[in-house]
Amino acid sequence: MAASTTTVSSKAGLPPGTLVHVGERLESETRITVIDYTRDGGSEHTVSTVEEIAGFRGADSITWVNVEGLVNVAVIEAIGQEFDIHPLVLEDILHTGQRPKFEDYDDYLFLVFKVMYPAHGGEVVNYEQVSVLILSDYVFTFKEKRDAIFDSIKARLRKPNAHFRKLGTDYLAYSLLDAVVDQYLSLQDYMDAALESIEDALLDEPDSSTLMSIQRVRHELIFMRRSAAPLRELVGGILRSDSELISDHTMIYYRDVYDHVLRVTDAFDTYRDMVGSLLEIYNSTISNHMNEVMKVLTVFATIFIPLTFLTGIYGMNFEYMPELKWKWSYPLLWACFLLIPAVLMFYFRKKKWL
Amino acid sequence: MAASTTTVSSKAGLPPGTLVHVGERLESETRITVIDYTRDGGSEHTVSTVEEIAGFRGADSITWVNVEGLVNVAVIEAIGQEFDIHPLVLEDILHTGQRPKFEDYDDYLFLVFKVMYPAHGGEVVNYEQVSVLILSDYVFTFKEKRDAIFDSIKARLRKPNAHFRKLGTDYLAYSLLDAVVDQYLSLQDYMDAALESIEDALLDEPDSSTLMSIQRVRHELIFMRRSAAPLRELVGGILRSDSELISDHTMIYYRDVYDHVLRVTDAFDTYRDMVGSLLEIYNSTISNHMNEVMKVLTVFATIFIPLTFLTGIYGMNFEYMPELKWKWSYPLLWACFLLIPAVLMFYFRKKKWL
Amino acid sequence: MAASTTTVSSKAGLPPGTLVHVGERLESETRITVIDYTRDGGSEHTVSTVEEIAGFRGADSITWVNVEGLVNVAVIEAIGQEFDIHPLVLEDILHTGQRPKFEDYDDYLFLVFKVMYPAHGGEVVNYEQVSVLILSDYVFTFKEKRDAIFDSIKARLRKPNAHFRKLGTDYLAYSLLDAVVDQYLSLQDYMDAALESIEDALLDEPDSSTLMSIQRVRHELIFMRRSAAPLRELVGGILRSDSELISDHTMIYYRDVYDHVLRVTDAFDTYRDMVGSLLEIYNSTISNHMNEVMKVLTVFATIFIPLTFLTGIYGMNFEYMPELKWKWSYPLLWACFLLIPAVLMFYFRKKKWL
Amino acid sequence: MAASTTTVSSKAGLPPGTLVHVGERLESETRITVIDYTRDGGSEHTVSTVEEIAGFRGADSITWVNVEGLVNVAVIEAIGQEFDIHPLVLEDILHTGQRPKFEDYDDYLFLVFKVMYPAHGGEVVNYEQVSVLILSDYVFTFKEKRDAIFDSIKARLRKPNAHFRKLGTDYLAYSLLDAVVDQYLSLQDYMDAALESIEDALLDEPDSSTLMSIQRVRHELIFMRRSAAPLRELVGGILRSDSELISDHTMIYYRDVYDHVLRVTDAFDTYRDMVGSLLEIYNSTISNHMNEVMKVLTVFATIFIPLTFLTGIYGMNFEYMPELKWKWSYPLLWACFLLIPAVLMFYFRKKKWL
Amino acid sequence: MAASTTTVSSKAGLPPGTLVHVGERLESETRITVIDYTRDGGSEHTVSTVEEIAGFRGADSITWVNVEGLVNVAVIEAIGQEFDIHPLVLEDILHTGQRPKFEDYDDYLFLVFKVMYPAHGGEVVNYEQVSVLILSDYVFTFKEKRDAIFDSIKARLRKPNAHFRKLGTDYLAYSLLDAVVDQYLSLQDYMDAALESIEDALLDEPDSSTLMSIQRVRHELIFMRRSAAPLRELVGGILRSDSELISDHTMIYYRDVYDHVLRVTDAFDTYRDMVGSLLEIYNSTISNHMNEVMKVLTVFATIFIPLTFLTGIYGMNFEYMPELKWKWSYPLLWACFLLIPAVLMFYFRKKKWL
Repeated sequence: MAASTTTVSSKAGLPPGTLVHVGERLESETRITVIDYTRDGGSEHTVSTVEEIAGFRGADSITWVNVEGLVNVAVIEAIGQEFDIHPLVLEDILHTGQRPKFEDYDDYLFLVFKVMYPAHGGEVVNYEQVSVLILSDYVFTFKEKRDAIFDSIKARLRKPNAHFRKLGTDYLAYSLLDAVVDQYLSLQDYMDAALESIEDALLDEPDSSTLMSIQRVRHELIFMRRSAAPLRELVGGILRSDSELISDHTMIYYRDVYDHVLRVTDAFDTYRDMVGSLLEIYNSTISNHMNEVMKVLTVFATIFIPLTFLTGIYGMNFEYMPELKWKWSYPLLWACFLLIPAVLMFYFRKKKWL
Repeated sequence: MAASTTTVSSKAGLPPGTLVHVGERLESETRITVIDYTRDGGSEHTVSTVEEIAGFRGADSITWVNVEGLVNVAVIEAIGQEFDIHPLVLEDILHTGQRPKFEDYDDYLFLVFKVMYPAHGGEVVNYEQVSVLILSDYVFTFKEKRDAIFDSIKARLRKPNAHFRKLGTDYLAYSLLDAVVDQYLSLQDYMDAALESIEDALLDEPDSSTLMSIQRVRHELIFMRRSAAPLRELVGGILRSDSELISDHTMIYYRDVYDHVLRVTDAFDTYRDMVGSLLEIYNSTISNHMNEVMKVLTVFATIFIPLTFLTGIYGMNFEYMPELKWKWSYPLLWACFLLIPAVLMFYFRKKKWL
Repeated sequence: MAASTTTVSSKAGLPPGTLVHVGERLESETRITVIDYTRDGGSEHTVSTVEEIAGFRGADSITWVNVEGLVNVAVIEAIGQEFDIHPLVLEDILHTGQRPKFEDYDDYLFLVFKVMYPAHGGEVVNYEQVSVLILSDYVFTFKEKRDAIFDSIKARLRKPNAHFRKLGTDYLAYSLLDAVVDQYLSLQDYMDAALESIEDALLDEPDSSTLMSIQRVRHELIFMRRSAAPLRELVGGILRSDSELISDHTMIYYRDVYDHVLRVTDAFDTYRDMVGSLLEIYNSTISNHMNEVMKVLTVFATIFIPLTFLTGIYGMNFEYMPELKWKWSYPLLWACFLLIPAVLMFYFRKKKWL
Repeated sequence: MAASTTTVSSKAGLPPGTLVHVGERLESETRITVIDYTRDGGSEHTVSTVEEIAGFRGADSITWVNVEGLVNVAVIEAIGQEFDIHPLVLEDILHTGQRPKFEDYDDYLFLVFKVMYPAHGGEVVNYEQVSVLILSDYVFTFKEKRDAIFDSIKARLRKPNAHFRKLGTDYLAYSLLDAVVDQYLSLQDYMDAALESIEDALLDEPDSSTLMSIQRVRHELIFMRRSAAPLRELVGGILRSDSELISDHTMIYYRDVYDHVLRVTDAFDTYRDMVGSLLEIYNSTISNHMNEVMKVLTVFATIFIPLTFLTGIYGMNFEYMPELKWKWSYPLLWACFLLIPAVLMFYFRKKKWL
Repeated sequence: MAASTTTVSSKAGLPPGTLVHVGERLESETRITVIDYTRDGGSEHTVSTVEEIAGFRGADSITWVNVEGLVNVAVIEAIGQEFDIHPLVLEDILHTGQRPKFEDYDDYLFLVFKVMYPAHGGEVVNYEQVSVLILSDYVFTFKEKRDAIFDSIKARLRKPNAHFRKLGTDYLAYSLLDAVVDQYLSLQDYMDAALESIEDALLDEPDSSTLMSIQRVRHELIFMRRSAAPLRELVGGILRSDSELISDHTMIYYRDVYDHVLRVTDAFDTYRDMVGSLLEIYNSTISNHMNEVMKVLTVFATIFIPLTFLTGIYGMNFEYMPELKWKWSYPLLWACFLLIPAVLMFYFRKKKWL
């Protein structure tokens, strides 16, 4: 998480457009997978040079180039040169601290956003930057890591006669975006589980570890919201754009993604309110607890302090203390020892302290 | 309530437009009721096939198809095919985690929103997703449950010569929306009762259960506001749309619904402020209480501690303690025992601690 | 106050446009007063039928119809029919939970808003809904109660050669609105007095009743702001409207009212900030107080606890305690009894506890 | 300060345009100063009638009429009549509770705003309402008090060949506004000093008077912001206006004033954040303090309570207590008296309580 | 930091356009460096008169004039005269309390903004005002101090055949702005380190110095945000402007800077949320701590108080106390002394106090 805020300064002072990978090095090498498909069929290849990629430039086939691992700067620079991509775009692809955005460069569209999904048995949230270039017959995706987020799309592309394969690069790009937003929605299960376990702890016996849990969830929400909020602008930008690369027919699908993004940001707002509310319950519970402790102390002290005073009186060694010699003194004092607490208990009960 | 945040992820990875019911299964079967009416009369039927529904396609009759229970995906898919509904719309109908929205598909209008109403003697709030399709001579409503929310409209339709029956599908859709917003307004009684009982508890003797009540109401308000807020956009979208399916004459009625929606969201804002204010009263009351407990403890301790010290002195066993032999020592000490508390009480009263 | 949030649901389920009085029944009957005036003179009548009202339809006279008490639904329905008012407008007039709004129906303008003014010696705030219909030669006002809010306008109308009487219905409506906004401004005296008395209580000796006062004022501010805020939209709507019923000449006066409304909402915002600040003073004062109590307890306890321990030692009955027999033990111990408190007091003073 | 919120209601009920001075009476009489200047020279007069003012209506001279003290309503009414000013404008001039605003009446422009400046050795903030009327060859300023805020402008006008004198009434009005905004900026010194003294008190020994200081500054900030915020709209309104009374050349100067106003409102926002932060430091410091007091009490009590219990045991008078006769009992007990505190101190130190 | 809020008033009362340096005097003299370059080569000079600067007015060379130290007002005035700069611009350059802004004066563009960077081993933040004038063949930069912020650009300009040198003044200005925004991004490391050290202190043992650290960071964030927020408007203004001084080709680069600025302001928002969250952890930790202290006190007091009371009873000197003579009294009492604490400990453990 910290990666998104700490690694920015290392490039300060370099001229713009200088291609250097800025960010944590998450993979040791760059893997390039190409899926080329037409209405009738498709093929899947692992390639290593830009020439191979350019070789798929076909009449009416659509080519999806998936670049995983951003360590091989040379190959990304070569893709940029071959497909005439602006240096600033290549810089943004390699620089993993991007703010999600959509840019229209006439010949191609550029999207960059964050993927978030729970990992390691749902206890840690993974962050990854994904960049998408939409050309008329190519879609490039640049990912920091090899993971499974686009596997469902690959599976659908492999099916013969998929509805999918009759449509253009805009629909493929939509599917990628949709898969990412679905990952966001899946974070809700993660958050629900986290909040529920905090709620249980609050009902049981809250301690400082409960506070830490609340703050950890809150901290993560800050980062999630920061990643998710610009997505609304991003998809909104696509909806408003009049690029020829996105057909009217596909626009309806982007509108659907927009609704999903609104749902995600709504949910994050709700979670924030709920975490704030949990924090208040925590503080009030601690305060209640202290109140209860104070009451017990007060009841004990106020009952025994006067009694101890009485014992102190008759423990004095004055020569002239007539009560000491009187036979009924001791039993009478015991009566006091029973009466005084009774009276005080009655008073405290009336005050609702017990 | 949790349903609206937890069931989203189960569809992640499926291609868009895949028809699967996502959400809690609230009914065991799907019941379809058709009300067909013209200016002169009407009829009511329970049907089970799409052919039967299509059979009501008449010259100038208006047909309201009410689908309750979303378990029978096949019949909803068939309706979509028969009436040429976009697959994404059908998907939204079946997916019960929708954000309320309005969409204009030229041939038909699509509304989806939440119904909320108190149930079980006013102690629980029920949530239900309702989708409405407005065609030129058909209105479809898709509901998760069989309940009474549209019964008043059915009753009005049954009346001969109802003003209602002279108007088009736009007016029927308005009536449905109006009935739903009236349900929202009825939540105010529920909220008023809840807040009043909390206020009573605060005046009486607030404890941790009061805190829980406040937080429960607050929690529910978060969900209610989340359901109600997008309704403003929804009705606003209808008012701004220039669809031919809504006549100018009916637009005035939608403007009226818009006012009601504003009233609902205003009321929810007011409730939120009031709940926040109740929470502050709670915290201040607890704090006051503790203050009072502390005062009692302090008064008791500060009065008896010096007295007990005095008894301690004359309980010592030194051989040379002249006071012990003096006759008036004991009565004089008793005078101290009375004087010291009197002085301290006077001091505390001046300090306004008693 | 509660009336504005609780009486809404009683109409749920009725068809729109059904005329039923919804709200508290504040008058037992409906009184209709008509003031008819031209440039040269005027007359004042109390009428009971719609025919009488319609009878004032004169060449160039302006007729103000003031309806007080909304119990007689029939007469309001008759007015609606005679002057061709939309059923939804009549419904809004009779339904006292309206959100303030302005609507332009071409032939007439419709305003509905709340009047608020302090009553009963300035200790209670009265709320009343007022609806205004502006026609080309008639102005209708519908009020829930008989009260004095429009008396100053009546007085001005009675004066011969009043500047007032040379102008149209738009100026009359402006005067009514201006009178209402002046009532809002008069609430400032009420609020100033309330805040000042709380400030005094805070400086003196705040207790839980002070807290209750703060919360009551805050509660009322929530309702006042809720009534006042939509007034800005209302007057803004009039300023933006291009209705022929409002002349350019009068528009300047509406602009003036708009400034007053801004001043009212500014003032309410200021009051809210001030109440928030009073609440914080209250909490800090309570906290300070507790701190002081704790210090006294601590000083007493820490001084006497070690002394009492010393007396305990020499109250023990061991056979071999040489100090007990030594002559100077007792005086030396007394020296300790004086020295220990002195040292502790010095320490506490250095720590600024005293 | 209170003046701006309390004196409003006294005019309620009067017809609009009635000229009455509403506000505190700050001067006993009205002084009118006229400065008339052309490119070549100028003259300064104190006048008392409107005829004298009108007498300066010259070919190309510019006349600045400065009216100080609003008690003489007649002369202001006469100015209104002579120069054809709208009655509502005159009413606003005399009514000192105005919200700052800019209005364009074609023949003249009307500005009304608040002047704020620290007075009496920088300990009190003075508020004053200033109204400005800009005509083609006259500028009127109406002030509540005689003070020095425009003295620098008078001084500049007196200089021969001043750049100033070659420009029109728009530049004079700009200079007046600029002088006022500079007064606002000078409040920053006042605020900086106030905040610094609070910071010092917080580092030293905060008590309830520190709280009062914080709240007083906060209170004043509320009023300052309320006066300053509408100034942004005011100058923004001038910038957007296309009045012929303001030349393009002077517009650049108004743009500069606009920047200054933004700086003022930015500064006030910063001060608000800083005051909020000081309040939190105050509360945390009090809380820290109490924590420290509690620790001392706890350490004292927990050390001596068990020791006193031990002395109690051997102060009992049972006949069969073998320890009492044993020779080493007393020294051994003393060993306990030293060991127990040492163990407890070690424990507390480990817990970081000391 | 304080400089930005305190030095404003010293110029109050002077006529606009008067050239006086307002702000801290950070350098003792003004150094002017000129870098003149064409596509083919460049040269670097230190000059002292305006004539020398004007001498670089060449056919197609671009001249960057870097003025460091604002003490020599005369030379800045001379530059203004030579290059026909508006007096208000010169005033803004010399006045170091400017709000960042962009202004288009047709013949030249004017930018003024703040540079912020951590200094002295990353513990202090430096603030500096930089003004930029963009002419068709000149770029002027005015800086308060001599520092290294533009060194990377100088280095790039010195390289033969730099892509840089083929572009106009708009690209040079962009590079300067980009360098400044990169400095902002480098503040993130500074903030990350500060927050991390606070987090460590919170986990370890928070005390009042931790509170001071939190408040210091918060305080600095207020100033940083105040400097950074207007930068968004500034770059936004450049993007919207249609000045001929900025080519379409360079606009893409400004769009990139705009993204960086958004990232900076996003990051500052995140930091603010995180600091707020740290403050809450601090307060809750202190509160937890006090709770723990209270528990220990309560446990000690409630265990020993009844025991001490028992010892008090049998320390009394009544003649008729049969237990005193009974042989098993003392051992039995010891049984009580062990049993009572055991029972109480069991009770407290059940209440989860231990």
